[in-house]
Amino acid sequence: MVTFTDSQKALLARPIYASLGTIRPDNTVTVNPMWFEFDGEVVKFTHTSTRGKYRNLQQNPSMCLMVLDPDNPFNYAELRGSLKEVVEDPTGSFWVHLAERYGNPGAPAPDDSPDRVILVMQIDRILGFTG
Amino acid sequence: MVTFTDSQKALLARPIYASLGTIRPDNTVTVNPMWFEFDGEVVKFTHTSTRGKYRNLQQNPSMCLMVLDPDNPFNYAELRGSLKEVVEDPTGSFWVHLAERYGNPGAPAPDDSPDRVILVMQIDRILGFTG
Repeated sequence: MVTFTDSQKALLARPIYASLGTIRPDNTVTVNPMWFEFDGEVVKFTHTSTRGKYRNLQQNPSMCLMVLDPDNPFNYAELRGSLKEVVEDPTGSFWVHLAERYGNPGAPAPDDSPDRVILVMQIDRILGFTG
Repeated sequence: MVTFTDSQKALLARPIYASLGTIRPDNTVTVNPMWFEFDGEVVKFTHTSTRGKYRNLQQNPSMCLMVLDPDNPFNYAELRGSLKEVVEDPTGSFWVHLAERYGNPGAPAPDDSPDRVILVMQIDRILGFTG
């Protein structure tokens, strides 16, 4: 069980565009900007079952999320872990929830909602300069 | 040969803390905040020969750099490529150069200068929302 300091929790509570790394089937790396939500134990993302990251994670479940404080580059967290679970979200409700968290309340569910999934990331380790 | 649009070049010219993904020897992914400089063809980083990313790249040269405009999350670039070359930098001069680029002119060379290297990343592909 990973424990988090108060400053790590404070950083992870903020609606920062984070960087999610995954590994492609040809063993090359990819990094994408992602909305996220941390519930104190796992990190959740909205994604679709038709896109690259989803396919990557079927082959290699490794995930790394880097969250950098835009106001202070020495305050960052690197979360290492892996895909724990995929939850179907065919109404896009988690996308709508994250859109609100990221400053767009009341946004309609996206057109690709039928394919929407929630990626649940298990955290094995936290690194970074955050105290 | 990858070609870059003017808006991609403008984004990559800025001293943004970027996210560099590499793959560890156990086939898990890691993402770190990095200073970088793009010269129009390759991306250069300052690093040391004693640290994790260096060892990762000896085993798997794949690199992915994600550069996100802090003022507009829809403006980002994902550069996919690999380690092209390692250049020794025993005086830390490239660290000093990047420190100046990132707002700290006149910084003294770091204590770990004897181990400093310049990682040169070859770019194979550019993706992202940048026009």
